[in-house]
Amino acid sequence: TQHRKEFNRLTGLSIQIDATFKANSGHPGAPMGMAPISHVLFNKFMRFNPKNPGWVNRDRFVLSNGHGCMLQYALLHLFGYELSMDDLKNFRHIDSITPGHPEAHDTPGIEVTTGPLGQGFANAVGLAVAQAHTAGVFNKPGYDLINNYTYCFFGDGCAMEGIASEAASAAGHLQLGNLIMIYDDNHISIDGDTKCAFTEDVLKRFEAYGWHTQHVEQGDTDLEGMEAAIKKAQEVKDKPSVIKLTTTIGYGSKLQGTGGVHGNPLKEDDILQVKKKFGFNPEETFVVPQEVYDMYHKHASEGAAAEQEWNKLFEKYSGEYKDLAADLSRRLTGKLPEGWQNKLPTYKPSDPAIASRKLSESVLEAIYDVVPELVSGSADLTGSNNTRWKSAVDFQPPSTGIGEWSGRYMRYGVREHAMAAMMNGMSAYGTIIPAGGTFLNFVSYAAGAVRLSSLSHQRVIYVATHDSIGLGEDGPTHQPIETLAHFRALPNMMVWRPADGNETSAAYYVALTSHETPSILALTRQNLPQLEGSTLEKAIKGGYVALEDKNAQITLVSTGSEVSLCLEAVKYLKDNQGITARVVSMPCVEVFDAQDKDYRLSVIPDGIPSMSVEVMSTLGWEKYSHEQFGLNRFGASGAYKDVYKKFEFTPEGIAKRAAATVDFYKDVKPLRSPINRAFLQLI
Amino acid sequence: TQHRKEFNRLTGLSIQIDATFKANSGHPGAPMGMAPISHVLFNKFMRFNPKNPGWVNRDRFVLSNGHGCMLQYALLHLFGYELSMDDLKNFRHIDSITPGHPEAHDTPGIEVTTGPLGQGFANAVGLAVAQAHTAGVFNKPGYDLINNYTYCFFGDGCAMEGIASEAASAAGHLQLGNLIMIYDDNHISIDGDTKCAFTEDVLKRFEAYGWHTQHVEQGDTDLEGMEAAIKKAQEVKDKPSVIKLTTTIGYGSKLQGTGGVHGNPLKEDDILQVKKKFGFNPEETFVVPQEVYDMYHKHASEGAAAEQEWNKLFEKYSGEYKDLAADLSRRLTGKLPEGWQNKLPTYKPSDPAIASRKLSESVLEAIYDVVPELVSGSADLTGSNNTRWKSAVDFQPPSTGIGEWSGRYMRYGVREHAMAAMMNGMSAYGTIIPAGGTFLNFVSYAAGAVRLSSLSHQRVIYVATHDSIGLGEDGPTHQPIETLAHFRALPNMMVWRPADGNETSAAYYVALTSHETPSILALTRQNLPQLEGSTLEKAIKGGYVALEDKNAQITLVSTGSEVSLCLEAVKYLKDNQGITARVVSMPCVEVFDAQDKDYRLSVIPDGIPSMSVEVMSTLGWEKYSHEQFGLNRFGASGAYKDVYKKFEFTPEGIAKRAAATVDFYKDVKPLRSPINRAFLQLI
Ligand SMILES: [Ca+2]
Ligand SMILES: [Ca+2]
Repeated sequence: TQHRKEFNRLTGLSIQIDATFKANSGHPGAPMGMAPISHVLFNKFMRFNPKNPGWVNRDRFVLSNGHGCMLQYALLHLFGYELSMDDLKNFRHIDSITPGHPEAHDTPGIEVTTGPLGQGFANAVGLAVAQAHTAGVFNKPGYDLINNYTYCFFGDGCAMEGIASEAASAAGHLQLGNLIMIYDDNHISIDGDTKCAFTEDVLKRFEAYGWHTQHVEQGDTDLEGMEAAIKKAQEVKDKPSVIKLTTTIGYGSKLQGTGGVHGNPLKEDDILQVKKKFGFNPEETFVVPQEVYDMYHKHASEGAAAEQEWNKLFEKYSGEYKDLAADLSRRLTGKLPEGWQNKLPTYKPSDPAIASRKLSESVLEAIYDVVPELVSGSADLTGSNNTRWKSAVDFQPPSTGIGEWSGRYMRYGVREHAMAAMMNGMSAYGTIIPAGGTFLNFVSYAAGAVRLSSLSHQRVIYVATHDSIGLGEDGPTHQPIETLAHFRALPNMMVWRPADGNETSAAYYVALTSHETPSILALTRQNLPQLEGSTLEKAIKGGYVALEDKNAQITLVSTGSEVSLCLEAVKYLKDNQGITARVVSMPCVEVFDAQDKDYRLSVIPDGIPSMSVEVMSTLGWEKYSHEQFGLNRFGASGAYKDVYKKFEFTPEGIAKRAAATVDFYKDVKPLRSPINRAFLQLI
Repeated sequence: TQHRKEFNRLTGLSIQIDATFKANSGHPGAPMGMAPISHVLFNKFMRFNPKNPGWVNRDRFVLSNGHGCMLQYALLHLFGYELSMDDLKNFRHIDSITPGHPEAHDTPGIEVTTGPLGQGFANAVGLAVAQAHTAGVFNKPGYDLINNYTYCFFGDGCAMEGIASEAASAAGHLQLGNLIMIYDDNHISIDGDTKCAFTEDVLKRFEAYGWHTQHVEQGDTDLEGMEAAIKKAQEVKDKPSVIKLTTTIGYGSKLQGTGGVHGNPLKEDDILQVKKKFGFNPEETFVVPQEVYDMYHKHASEGAAAEQEWNKLFEKYSGEYKDLAADLSRRLTGKLPEGWQNKLPTYKPSDPAIASRKLSESVLEAIYDVVPELVSGSADLTGSNNTRWKSAVDFQPPSTGIGEWSGRYMRYGVREHAMAAMMNGMSAYGTIIPAGGTFLNFVSYAAGAVRLSSLSHQRVIYVATHDSIGLGEDGPTHQPIETLAHFRALPNMMVWRPADGNETSAAYYVALTSHETPSILALTRQNLPQLEGSTLEKAIKGGYVALEDKNAQITLVSTGSEVSLCLEAVKYLKDNQGITARVVSMPCVEVFDAQDKDYRLSVIPDGIPSMSVEVMSTLGWEKYSHEQFGLNRFGASGAYKDVYKKFEFTPEGIAKRAAATVDFYKDVKPLRSPINRAFLQLI
């Protein structure tokens, strides 16, 4: 059988080599080095049904070193996922389902989008959190419904990334027993031998985090050793496991063990000798013998049978735990419970001024029991982000005595980047909507993972408090200037900056009901009055008229804490300059952009100039206004009112610029709204 | 003397408590917990001259847990830096030199800007790299010119951040023997006890990185233990050292040992009892007895004397090593060697098409020997970033056999965030201009530190290759869309996207001669032709006319790889639509913004519409154009020409939109250049 194993694994290998050669691009080294462990893991351990990649209790696999994705594509093909030999031939070709790095929404069987190093590692931690939490909520005596493993391959590159360190520390603390990582210790990264930059003792580091560690020294050949290590890792239930597998990158190539085989396809003569060495016909490309398909399909059928068994178990469970079963089924559709939105708080103008971070807390307090899939948390700023409802239980190993697996509050620690990537994994699991808090300025620490929330269509909510110079004394190191421009430029991301209570509820409404789009909620530290003109219905359009005046000479377009300042400026303008102004509140430009043109033109009309008012970078506001009042420099440390005053964010400061704008545009005919464009953007 | 020590340290403490109370803001906990170690470190070990904070061989101190900066301000005051009691009273007040977190360019004696957690830790590693490198270059037998230590305090928050893990791993590999870190192990972070999120064995982790580790268990009282530990750490010369100091946060307060004392000033009654407990007059505020000043000033005088000694040594050195001495003196002024710029490569239109990442390599190759302070490197993408000149020697401990302390090429490993923060520290040291490479998309991983390059005025160069969908097959996970908008919105950052060889040289010219501003150079993977209209002199204005036509009906404003596409589109427009167009190349909007208005209007004139062309987010281009052609969605994996074609970035695709733009604006009078604004921005 050793021979048979060898043969089978190499079969997967030959089509990978063919594909990277045909693409004239790709990374053959990691796939060639990790073929044996893949064979062992997928055929001996992994439980999945290629005909239903969405089965909730399937084992999850994450290729954190995503550049090796040809390995994963070949396996998916062999097991019978909807990924044809033609798809493999189109590897890295335009509009294929086999892009250069694995993308979850493109390819059946890919769990999370990886490639940016370290992300997959932290996604896997998130998937394991989701498994432990979902098990904690739904499993009952006799019903071990949710017990899947999360497996993850990672390389030296991932091991060096800070995000993976953060996630590894968190996973150790959380004692995620169903998480099994394989470290491809091949001593090679792009710069060559890891001795030039990476000489730490990786296993000792993971031990320090509280992981169970093992080392398989002959990772190119010792299939039994790999099998035994994974088995042992499965048995350790109170710690995550890492198996260091010492391998040879590009095993079999003339360049094996060198950086030369990392990022470039093999040369033609090298392919010929590899194929000969491993017993393939060098004349053939993209060929898999039927007996090989048969073997892989057999394992796939076992997976399908396991799902059938599970479905029976779930049916029985549905009889005994009707509500829980219905809840789990509903969660998997992505739809929220009927009528949940009626719990969202609404406000009248006479209600007191409240900071939007507190308004956000009120939303969570109001909806947590009707949206059970909501799992909140913070990167060690719970009291500042106001992310925790009063009765929340922490997600913690019960042995710690400070929480439960079923707990819905995550203590991420000061680990913003891992938090974001863990949330991506938690969202990808399918039973959770994660919300995580930090200061808006430190969402930037998580930028790599936030980008992947967007690219991979995860419904993740970033609760980003202390959203401007309005945070005051902490000063420029903590005051965002560029942050909203950054994330507004990120495709498929909603950036919300609500101005009051109704807008905060609207932000949550849209965030929670947008299945494929993440959101950043930028929230104030300081109190905000409740606006006259706001309603949830208006705010969910992303932008609306907060103060109308048919005789207006200018439109002020503003967000968040500056909307009420604009309303004050309107009075000042009328009283001091005799200028009539109207005010638009624009809590989310991305949602506003999605409204029809007539609506958008009714909000920012032709004929009068508009001026944006937002106390940070003006970049991008030209799209919605003729002139922009913002802050294109760093802030200052001081009481927030002093800081606002220093930068002229006062009714007078706004009025002065509004008057200049009215004057400047008085001779331009026709004066078009910036909503009118010569052509449509590619989106 | 124990009593005296105690008294002195507590004196520093009392003004800190007074200042946080007066500011009604700030973090008294860490200062109160770390007062004893500060006293020991600053009075027993640190060598510095408050009258000359710029002495190159001073010991560096970094407060990575920067929220405790009141501690640092008090010490600077006591030692006689230019920081008065009034400055302390103005702690966290607007326009003070004592902002809420330490800012290097605001306050004498602050080495680096900290507060965002983990940054200071990695800055300290960079400062230690700079010390080791500078020593390697300048020290000679009998002339131990550069031998300062770098000390850093960090807390649990820093220890949890990925950036600190990356930097710690790098420091261990680099065997930075003059780096001594003190870990304030107080078991408290903002969410409360660290047991809720952070239960790893920190010292074991540092051992795994290759650090020398010690533990002082009685960090509140054991002054002798602290002294012995620092002494021992100084003696270990082949490893960085970390001393875990178990302390009580807010030691002395009624709330000591709790999160309640982390981020809020003490209550009035608590202040009274603390002052009584430690023998102060509770009636007095902001009082330091003269004998205390005397003691601190005595240590300051010892530092001044040490500098005098050093100056004598340097004078002697100047006789023996004239060129080296002159080089060191020049470096410390921040000015480059006379005439260096004559080495910058220039190109003719007939020169071959070359990728701008290769053009960048040619610049480095041409100037490395005339700009000896330039230290290049890459986050494990050397072959892709083209950051290494052929004869470069790696910066490595000589014992590794693969480099030298004097080496000028850094192998940062796959650690983008630490690379950026280490470069901030290296720049802050004063003898180095660091340049570091990664893919543009992964500069986002470093966003937290890139922001601090800008805020703290560091001359750091980010060599950001693979700058668009033009990277092709690696696909959307690697193709920047939002990245340039992000960093263009960041104040005091120059984002360069050169279109050819002359523009690449211009980018380096401005980056290297801008003492107070960092730069990001966005460079292509694919080849770019040499433009007809480009010169270094034009390009250093940030934007210029690449193709003029007095009869033009439209201005195309473009950057990088799209400029040559625009030039092709001009021909297409003329031949197919009879439209005459002119082309502006805008390699750096920030530098263009700094030109006078007449010049800017000559580049983007009144009377005709303009359209921007850049193959990524259009956000912000409205500032320079009436219409924008860009890519407001994620890219695609495929051959780069296929990807460009898919998104219509072709002469035809540009021409189609240009024609629509001409048509759309034909009835607008006057048609003003977007350079005209109703009012000036605050910058
Ligand atoms: Ca590797
Ligand atoms: Ca702490």
